[in-house]
Amino acid sequence: MKKKISVVAGGAGFVGANLVPRLLEQGLLVVVVDNFCRGQRKFLQEYVKKYGEQLLIKEADLSIFEETDSTFCDIAKLGEIDEIWHLAANSDIPAGIVDSNIDLKDTFLTTHFLLQAAKKYKVPSFHFASSSAVYGDHGQLILSEASGPCRPISYYGAMKLASEGAITAAEESYLEVANIFRFPNVVGTPATHGVISDFIKKLTLDPKVLNVLGNGQQQKSYLHVSDLVDGMMYVRNESEHGSCIFNIGPMDDGITVRQIAELVVSEVSPSASISYGDNAKGWVGDVPKFQYNIDKLTGFGWRPKLNSRDAIKLAVKQIYSQKNSDPQ
Amino acid sequence: MKKKISVVAGGAGFVGANLVPRLLEQGLLVVVVDNFCRGQRKFLQEYVKKYGEQLLIKEADLSIFEETDSTFCDIAKLGEIDEIWHLAANSDIPAGIVDSNIDLKDTFLTTHFLLQAAKKYKVPSFHFASSSAVYGDHGQLILSEASGPCRPISYYGAMKLASEGAITAAEESYLEVANIFRFPNVVGTPATHGVISDFIKKLTLDPKVLNVLGNGQQQKSYLHVSDLVDGMMYVRNESEHGSCIFNIGPMDDGITVRQIAELVVSEVSPSASISYGDNAKGWVGDVPKFQYNIDKLTGFGWRPKLNSRDAIKLAVKQIYSQKNSDPQ
Repeated sequence: MKKKISVVAGGAGFVGANLVPRLLEQGLLVVVVDNFCRGQRKFLQEYVKKYGEQLLIKEADLSIFEETDSTFCDIAKLGEIDEIWHLAANSDIPAGIVDSNIDLKDTFLTTHFLLQAAKKYKVPSFHFASSSAVYGDHGQLILSEASGPCRPISYYGAMKLASEGAITAAEESYLEVANIFRFPNVVGTPATHGVISDFIKKLTLDPKVLNVLGNGQQQKSYLHVSDLVDGMMYVRNESEHGSCIFNIGPMDDGITVRQIAELVVSEVSPSASISYGDNAKGWVGDVPKFQYNIDKLTGFGWRPKLNSRDAIKLAVKQIYSQKNSDPQ
Repeated sequence: MKKKISVVAGGAGFVGANLVPRLLEQGLLVVVVDNFCRGQRKFLQEYVKKYGEQLLIKEADLSIFEETDSTFCDIAKLGEIDEIWHLAANSDIPAGIVDSNIDLKDTFLTTHFLLQAAKKYKVPSFHFASSSAVYGDHGQLILSEASGPCRPISYYGAMKLASEGAITAAEESYLEVANIFRFPNVVGTPATHGVISDFIKKLTLDPKVLNVLGNGQQQKSYLHVSDLVDGMMYVRNESEHGSCIFNIGPMDDGITVRQIAELVVSEVSPSASISYGDNAKGWVGDVPKFQYNIDKLTGFGWRPKLNSRDAIKLAVKQIYSQKNSDPQ
């Protein structure tokens, strides 16, 4: 009997590298498709060793129809494609603000062509990594899934919102299950970018002072990647709920950039001073503060293990140790 | 002194043909850009005669970067581009459900490249024809702008939602004013498609019976195009409100397909019988019922003149008379 196949688009990236082992544990044939722009083969190396041919890695640019179609044509020969996890996106938000073509291509066209593949190859389930960036800046409002209107302030957020719409339309017409997870800031390893990596990099260059963009008052929720993957798997393993949009995040109201800077300094260079900018936003397209309501997901029976502060603390240790063991 | 320029993308279509004279009356130099897929030069003929060189018509496909850019490069030579009205879109929703590339191209990429043009040519204001289709099917809920999450059930709705997100992101970064109008069903002339035209066409082919898709119970709000254009101009002429997302629609809770069928029959072929299907939806991607809350817009001081029924009655007369005078 042919195996059930789980395709993980962008599966060689930060979240993918944490999701893939969870799928492999369930005995699925896992096919990672990545363009290796930001994802790296080494993130999956240990699973290739452990699981052998149960894990396949294919290189393709899913923002191009022909590459997506020929990749799925090959995968479909191996068995029944049971689900697509769509984690592929541009993750450099400021770059997408300068050139909107980047997010059009990597954040949205990947969704567009993956949905066409799901239709053509009759894939019943689609799980999507959306983002809190779809909401935009709503000041003090605590954001639930029903908060609206969505007014993304970055092209990244816009193209995540576009993807959500494309997926709900596809669900109306051919998908059986479509889960949309609105990620907050996610931390952990293998880190490719983000505030913790930036701070560690700066402190490595100059161990005496950490210059922080913005005034450090920005407060955001952070989820550890282990909790993120756990939450998504929880929702996906339940079948009764049908298709849903879920906020996924910690249960607290977040941690400030100032607190993150202090945690990084205390781990990496305890004698360093910290200097802040004047602006309430770090950069155009950055949402200075948001709070997340995850009642829908907790009402469904799942809870994260770490709060924002503990997620950051753990991630700082992990990323600093990853950096020290990294030959690059 | 060079004139201020108003660019109307998709300006040779149904709504454009009603908006263009309003802009011309204000003394603006109006440049219509259309690919003439659905828009028609004859819809603007009388204004070309009346206003001469104050109205320019350019043919271009705004879903293609090079065509958009070279068109705006030409327009910018004429003066300062003050605003873009973006009315260009695929309007055949079922076609976009069969092939999602249609709405990607005509409904979204037009927005994407118009925004790039607005950035490059420093156009401060952007007015966008969005749609109630962004909401999806929320059953009995009366939809306000803050209703969420948006779960469009057609690719058309998804690409209108994508456009909204792209516009709010552009507003954060370079637009001064961005107005998003969520249109309900709009009726009037010059009609190019829609339920009234369909019914008239069917009755012309067979004056004895009108076959209606669906059970006729679908109830929707209809706005006459004269009110639509009036509402948009009202919002655009006020400058204090900043950028907004507005539901625009009639103040009643709509009219059923059955009532529309009866109004068309009584105008076109009073002795015809009407036969209905079984389905609550006319077609995949059709929202069977929605009610619209327009408190935000009325709170802003504007009111539509016609309710759904009167808008339909007027439009039936106009479209039937347009059809009879049409040589095609």
